[in-house]
Amino acid sequence: MKQDKPLILISNDDGITAPGIRALVAAMKPLGEIIIVAPDSPQSGMGHAVTISKPLRLEKTDIYGELTAYQCSGTPADCVKLAVDKVLHRKPDLLVSGINHGSNSSINVLYSGTMSAAMEGAIEGIPSVGFSLCNYAYDADFSLAVSVAQTIAKNIIQNGLPVGTLLNVNIPNVNAEAFAGLKICRQANAKWQEEFDERKDPNGRRYFWLTGKFINMDKGEDTDEWALANGFASVVPVHFDLTAYHAMQQLNNWNLNIATHAQH
Amino acid sequence: MKQDKPLILISNDDGITAPGIRALVAAMKPLGEIIIVAPDSPQSGMGHAVTISKPLRLEKTDIYGELTAYQCSGTPADCVKLAVDKVLHRKPDLLVSGINHGSNSSINVLYSGTMSAAMEGAIEGIPSVGFSLCNYAYDADFSLAVSVAQTIAKNIIQNGLPVGTLLNVNIPNVNAEAFAGLKICRQANAKWQEEFDERKDPNGRRYFWLTGKFINMDKGEDTDEWALANGFASVVPVHFDLTAYHAMQQLNNWNLNIATHAQH
Repeated sequence: MKQDKPLILISNDDGITAPGIRALVAAMKPLGEIIIVAPDSPQSGMGHAVTISKPLRLEKTDIYGELTAYQCSGTPADCVKLAVDKVLHRKPDLLVSGINHGSNSSINVLYSGTMSAAMEGAIEGIPSVGFSLCNYAYDADFSLAVSVAQTIAKNIIQNGLPVGTLLNVNIPNVNAEAFAGLKICRQANAKWQEEFDERKDPNGRRYFWLTGKFINMDKGEDTDEWALANGFASVVPVHFDLTAYHAMQQLNNWNLNIATHAQH
Repeated sequence: MKQDKPLILISNDDGITAPGIRALVAAMKPLGEIIIVAPDSPQSGMGHAVTISKPLRLEKTDIYGELTAYQCSGTPADCVKLAVDKVLHRKPDLLVSGINHGSNSSINVLYSGTMSAAMEGAIEGIPSVGFSLCNYAYDADFSLAVSVAQTIAKNIIQNGLPVGTLLNVNIPNVNAEAFAGLKICRQANAKWQEEFDERKDPNGRRYFWLTGKFINMDKGEDTDEWALANGFASVVPVHFDLTAYHAMQQLNNWNLNIATHAQH
């Protein structure tokens, strides 16, 4: 971390031309050497998908002028894997993903392509963070998100992150006057209640659009949802060890004897 | 859980015609009323992807005879969402996903479509479990996996699962004589080291196939990788609260003051 110029890898899930990643590139430019590897088309909702049944394309692009930039035909996780194996000359000091057009707080961390790029970075041992602005509009105002991203990035470059930990940072859709600051939070217990929109195609066959209602079941004031509702940017440390350690003792009381042919 | 006939939802990621799901349907048939909602084509590596940018198809199929079965054009997570909203008449007592052709132990839980179906079930409050056999072959022998699936399913129907917890069950590729039993484990600290296979297409443009080498960095004897290497079926309790609670204190020492226009 003591290099003069930290190496910063940038990816996202809205695609390499999205305003959110352009704002993030501008935010990171003063902080280090920038390399961009991002999807060539929007990949929202891809979760931690990787592409194993078709080949991937990776093409250099000059849309960021003198900065090194590649567009990839795969998912956000593919982009990070390809960057590590085929683009980067050394392990980056920081991976930033986003800025996503729309929230990735609480349960959305699981569905989020933005966070899967950061997750893949963390698995690779790169200090990683995903940024999301709670505004889905293409022409959203990213100025507050840019300030938050710079503050977080500077802290990670200076302090590192605990091993196996990445950050999920969401920025509220408020102006600077209403902004309450940054808050370290836990993931709220929330879910989407599905309400598929059923339609008929011109041939009379039915099809469905996924829609839903977000339900926060968590009244805690230490959650990301509470923080965002109260004007804070939420900072949730995330890990990829999904073990529910608290459940192991209970499961050890189960009867797990199995009747196999050998034991008859 | 006191109904005479538990309602069991079955899904997978290898597609509704895969031998693995057919083995699972046969295993669950004696245990309750079966409803199958599974992808109409293979979805391996889809992670927790959901389909938001195109419409979904859901079609009844008679490939399971008198059993209620639907094939869906979406991901495993889509299948569970559609089942809950459009197919099931009540919340199932159990969701089983698999049996996957290939391991989903350790870090593979993140990339796994099989586990994303189980994860989506758990988010919906359904006791859920994913089964995977450590054998990628289409014509693998699922007999041991079937015994394991029945034992686990019976235990879940009888005991339930801790709130917010699902199970990731992997079955070693051994015969009944070499099988050591079931073991409650934690997720091993392991990763894939990418080695993209670079080729040229007929037009001379390069493309890449994702390949890699699995690296287990975890010497613990309480991990799923240890269990599988020693002939056990691994049973890892998994949760979808990804908060790294142990990291919150450290992050609270950061300097998170932010220079917004309002604070100048």
